[in-house]
Amino acid sequence: MNAPTSAPAFDHNLYAGCAAQIVSHTRELAAKGWTPATAGNFSIRMSADLAAITISGKDKGRLSEADIMVVDMDNRPVATHHRPSAETALHTHLYRRYPDVGAVLHTHSPTQTIAGLLYAPEGRVRLKGYELFKALRGHTTHEKTFDLPVVPNSQDMDELTASVDAVLSEPNTWGYLIAGHGLYAWGKDISEARRHLDAFEFMLGCELEMRRLRG
Amino acid sequence: MNAPTSAPAFDHNLYAGCAAQIVSHTRELAAKGWTPATAGNFSIRMSADLAAITISGKDKGRLSEADIMVVDMDNRPVATHHRPSAETALHTHLYRRYPDVGAVLHTHSPTQTIAGLLYAPEGRVRLKGYELFKALRGHTTHEKTFDLPVVPNSQDMDELTASVDAVLSEPNTWGYLIAGHGLYAWGKDISEARRHLDAFEFMLGCELEMRRLRG
Amino acid sequence: MNAPTSAPAFDHNLYAGCAAQIVSHTRELAAKGWTPATAGNFSIRMSADLAAITISGKDKGRLSEADIMVVDMDNRPVATHHRPSAETALHTHLYRRYPDVGAVLHTHSPTQTIAGLLYAPEGRVRLKGYELFKALRGHTTHEKTFDLPVVPNSQDMDELTASVDAVLSEPNTWGYLIAGHGLYAWGKDISEARRHLDAFEFMLGCELEMRRLRG
Amino acid sequence: MNAPTSAPAFDHNLYAGCAAQIVSHTRELAAKGWTPATAGNFSIRMSADLAAITISGKDKGRLSEADIMVVDMDNRPVATHHRPSAETALHTHLYRRYPDVGAVLHTHSPTQTIAGLLYAPEGRVRLKGYELFKALRGHTTHEKTFDLPVVPNSQDMDELTASVDAVLSEPNTWGYLIAGHGLYAWGKDISEARRHLDAFEFMLGCELEMRRLRG
Repeated sequence: MNAPTSAPAFDHNLYAGCAAQIVSHTRELAAKGWTPATAGNFSIRMSADLAAITISGKDKGRLSEADIMVVDMDNRPVATHHRPSAETALHTHLYRRYPDVGAVLHTHSPTQTIAGLLYAPEGRVRLKGYELFKALRGHTTHEKTFDLPVVPNSQDMDELTASVDAVLSEPNTWGYLIAGHGLYAWGKDISEARRHLDAFEFMLGCELEMRRLRG
Repeated sequence: MNAPTSAPAFDHNLYAGCAAQIVSHTRELAAKGWTPATAGNFSIRMSADLAAITISGKDKGRLSEADIMVVDMDNRPVATHHRPSAETALHTHLYRRYPDVGAVLHTHSPTQTIAGLLYAPEGRVRLKGYELFKALRGHTTHEKTFDLPVVPNSQDMDELTASVDAVLSEPNTWGYLIAGHGLYAWGKDISEARRHLDAFEFMLGCELEMRRLRG
Repeated sequence: MNAPTSAPAFDHNLYAGCAAQIVSHTRELAAKGWTPATAGNFSIRMSADLAAITISGKDKGRLSEADIMVVDMDNRPVATHHRPSAETALHTHLYRRYPDVGAVLHTHSPTQTIAGLLYAPEGRVRLKGYELFKALRGHTTHEKTFDLPVVPNSQDMDELTASVDAVLSEPNTWGYLIAGHGLYAWGKDISEARRHLDAFEFMLGCELEMRRLRG
Repeated sequence: MNAPTSAPAFDHNLYAGCAAQIVSHTRELAAKGWTPATAGNFSIRMSADLAAITISGKDKGRLSEADIMVVDMDNRPVATHHRPSAETALHTHLYRRYPDVGAVLHTHSPTQTIAGLLYAPEGRVRLKGYELFKALRGHTTHEKTFDLPVVPNSQDMDELTASVDAVLSEPNTWGYLIAGHGLYAWGKDISEARRHLDAFEFMLGCELEMRRLRG
């Protein structure tokens, strides 16, 4: 990544800090098996206009800071020859829609892939009675029903982004599934986004298990 | 944690030893996936009146001694600005009820969460024929029926503690489930509590598996 | 372990080598979750009359050479104050029955526990079509039916040993299940016993999975 | 491995590089549990006429460069006393059929073993709607049906190779299952073969899971 001799395109210390955090979390998620065959992408918002994001097609288990690039909120690369993944649009969509969101994590675990396929006809996974709702910001009790949205997959990113935008609501669901494609989760920073991601994976896993056990 | 210049509120060597043991076991349990999204809490009794316990909201996979505080048996913090988790009340309840209990471990594994939800209507998980009953203190044969109590969850800790108290019996069951919230297990020290916890997780996992296989 | 000043009760170099091998394999098996709550026991034959075996009640994930004792083929401790586990009788039974057997491994995995309970009424698990039969000594094709014996559990070791003896046959099955109690596997040395153990765990896991999938 | 004093049978630097890559990937696959009881074999094409391949019967979790031999495309050992595994024929078959293929990976995971047994009557596993199709070279969308071939197992390698040859087609499926025996996956180099392997394992696992959940 070359800094132009004029004013730098972004703060390199900020970039380096974001890259280090992304690498740390991504390697853990890869070790859990949630990023098969180079799937998954992870970003942190650097400012109102810029985000640090994983480059497409990299083995997430062997990710390094060199595999992180900077994009603007129109998905254009900044000060780099790397091309962003098509799925970058889903990250910037969330950053533009929610000014307080500071990180977006997209994983592709078996549970997330299957849950999306199974619940796609209903458009959401209906969760009830989990103490772990309290891991999602703003939620304080297990005594509720929580609908995690599911959208159909599409190779047309404009179509996909529009599908996602249509299901986002208040209060913030902190995540959504794409059928056969995995989960997007977000938060004010990467630690909160990770806590949300881990909570969704756990509850989706329990939900599939109970579906097996109840018939 | 500040020691007052008057007589210390507790024995710091004892506290340090308890904190080290809690951290060691908690990190292992986190690595097993039994403490998702900061769930779980773990304590060791320091004396008739005091216990060392994990501070609320910490990532259990990265727990350190700084994340352990001291409380009294009325759930009040001792010599610290940290606030105890609401679930501290479930630990002190067991310490007050059973004077010989020296450690309490609360985990939130998928198996424990699901088993609690599935068996809540029956109020217990009925286990039969496991050789591993012999891992529970006082049990010497597989030829018995063992009922692990299940209580409904509640955000009202007085209500939850009362529900738990009502299901505890003689002989000691060494554990109970809270529906959708996980397992509490205990023993005379943390090694025994851990052996009990591992035995319950194993048997609950087998029970759910056989429920799938038998239909 | 004290060596008497008269002729040593056993060859200490041989003992040390056996203890090291047992510790190495046991720690791996513990890491796989096959030795919950101190379950499991592992031995290597030192001679026609002696075997090195794990001491009862030890955490198998933290096993060290100090946790290995020597017994004779009547289950009596040799040159040690440690008492052998009751299950030692199942190891020496195999050493007495099969002079060529050099190691016995008893694990207690969820798959082995469940398979034993489910197939106990039939007295065996009938396996067909696995390429992995070829991992069992003497077996050269997948085109066969292999019956792995299952015996009912008992706390009376004489009764249990007799049940086992009644199901052993020619050709050697290299393993048997005890209902709700796990698997015993053996071989000419610990590497072969381990290969047999790993093959059984794998095939039993596939068998349970197919039972779920076929209904 | 002895180099003859005349012109060497192969380039030893090339061989050493291939051996190192095979060892690296094989140990990772063993750690995932995909090579039970010495099952599995892995190769890299060194030239039009030669391949480096794992020696038969080795514990894949403890594989070292000494466990890699060189064979020609008629399965004959080159400059070594080691005998190739019978399954070498399946590797060289692919190298002869597809001149651009540079690596072949054969694993034996539970999912691959079960999927082969379950889908053998249909002769293929029909996959639909997976975003992860895009991990397979030449595939650019989830909106398709992908048939992964399944052939019956045989101890007669000529018969087995002929069965495989009959199911290979255009476009390249990059993999096939042998019933009860696992998966063969390939690519232009070992990294691509590995990405294909990981993608198949993931999708087969999802497919079996959905079969359980849909009944």
